[in-house]
Amino acid sequence: MEIAQTPLATPHEAAWSPSAFEAQLRAKGRAYHIHHPFNVRMNAGGCTPDEIRCWVANRFYYQVCIPRKDAAILANMPDRAHRRLWIERILDHDGHGDFQGAAGGGLEAWTRLGEAVGIPREDLWSLQAVAPAVRFACDAYVRFAAQAPWQEAVCSSLTEMFAPQIHKDRLATWPQHYPWIEASGLAYFRNRIPLAGRDVEHGLQVTLEHFTTRVAQQRALDILQFKLDVLWTMLDAIEKASQQ
Amino acid sequence: MEIAQTPLATPHEAAWSPSAFEAQLRAKGRAYHIHHPFNVRMNAGGCTPDEIRCWVANRFYYQVCIPRKDAAILANMPDRAHRRLWIERILDHDGHGDFQGAAGGGLEAWTRLGEAVGIPREDLWSLQAVAPAVRFACDAYVRFAAQAPWQEAVCSSLTEMFAPQIHKDRLATWPQHYPWIEASGLAYFRNRIPLAGRDVEHGLQVTLEHFTTRVAQQRALDILQFKLDVLWTMLDAIEKASQQ
Repeated sequence: MEIAQTPLATPHEAAWSPSAFEAQLRAKGRAYHIHHPFNVRMNAGGCTPDEIRCWVANRFYYQVCIPRKDAAILANMPDRAHRRLWIERILDHDGHGDFQGAAGGGLEAWTRLGEAVGIPREDLWSLQAVAPAVRFACDAYVRFAAQAPWQEAVCSSLTEMFAPQIHKDRLATWPQHYPWIEASGLAYFRNRIPLAGRDVEHGLQVTLEHFTTRVAQQRALDILQFKLDVLWTMLDAIEKASQQ
Repeated sequence: MEIAQTPLATPHEAAWSPSAFEAQLRAKGRAYHIHHPFNVRMNAGGCTPDEIRCWVANRFYYQVCIPRKDAAILANMPDRAHRRLWIERILDHDGHGDFQGAAGGGLEAWTRLGEAVGIPREDLWSLQAVAPAVRFACDAYVRFAAQAPWQEAVCSSLTEMFAPQIHKDRLATWPQHYPWIEASGLAYFRNRIPLAGRDVEHGLQVTLEHFTTRVAQQRALDILQFKLDVLWTMLDAIEKASQQ
């Protein structure tokens, strides 16, 4: 997996301080899919029920990929302390314990969202509505995470820095714009907010410790841009698919 | 990773019934490292403290590989129901919850075994005492598990069918032959007995359902033989290393 490289990175430039580097990472939020026209329209109430269903069904492919992506990263982690933190992400999505309620995991919560917008469980899990370009983007992400050094894979997960706001936006706007969606279907968005915060803390720690030269820090920004491209490309494909 | 193939497998032979196939798998127990001369001698009280330490330090490399091997298999599992079962293996070894007591996991229990036989934690975790041939054997196992179809990787784990007896033997003989080893150090062996039983149930279910032609069943036996070879080769290398 080739990550597009910013040509401006030059070996002789001094490394950013950890706080300056973190600021550079956070500034990448300007390219987050929260600003994608489809997402803007969705949160402004401009989507038809079919468009909402298209988004939920396609985005489910990303959800399905996440625990396998995280397991691939786990397999590459030689350090038990990091594995003990990272495995929580898999449990978050696949569920844990008695698998009841919130312990059912993110895939289950997304399934409830699907049912709330009118997609039967079997249809969602069949993945038949998933657009090829959505598959390509998600598969590229999984492949990068599996094949890259684990610290680079962790860095690629840092779009989670920007996720709490997108979830909060949905919780704030959907009940008003889409009253036909049962409120309990939005639990996925609510559940993710605290989990994203915990994940970002670990991901940032790994990234700030690992990328310590200016060239390495520039690569970290390129990796984050790649992941932003994955999310943005998915919405391009979903926008296209929802018009057909 | 090439698995040595039994030349006798012929496509026209009828598949074994599930119970006959399971009997063939269980018959492979004759090649389990429980019969290796080093293991026989160890459980008969014939090992010096240095030989015990050599075994504990080298075998730790296998322990270290297991959670990463299981995460690689998890990454290859498309089915959430299987992942929900399989992830327990990683939690068993890396620990879970508050990481106290038995929840500290198998790597922690093995570390206690190391301390009980006189290997400081840092020395054990440094892996400096690990013989190259032990690394090669364990790495071959991890690589096979990561690259094979997940059902084949699950099949390769079925040496666990034979593990409870080897743990019981140690619990029955070590306190008598090696009274210098603190009894609490043997908790790893005690903890594994019920866990192995649970793991085998899932592993056998997957294997019996997946390998349904005679040629496939023969391949399953070859895969199990490969894993038996991994364990046997480790003891060859440990026996050699302990003589130096």
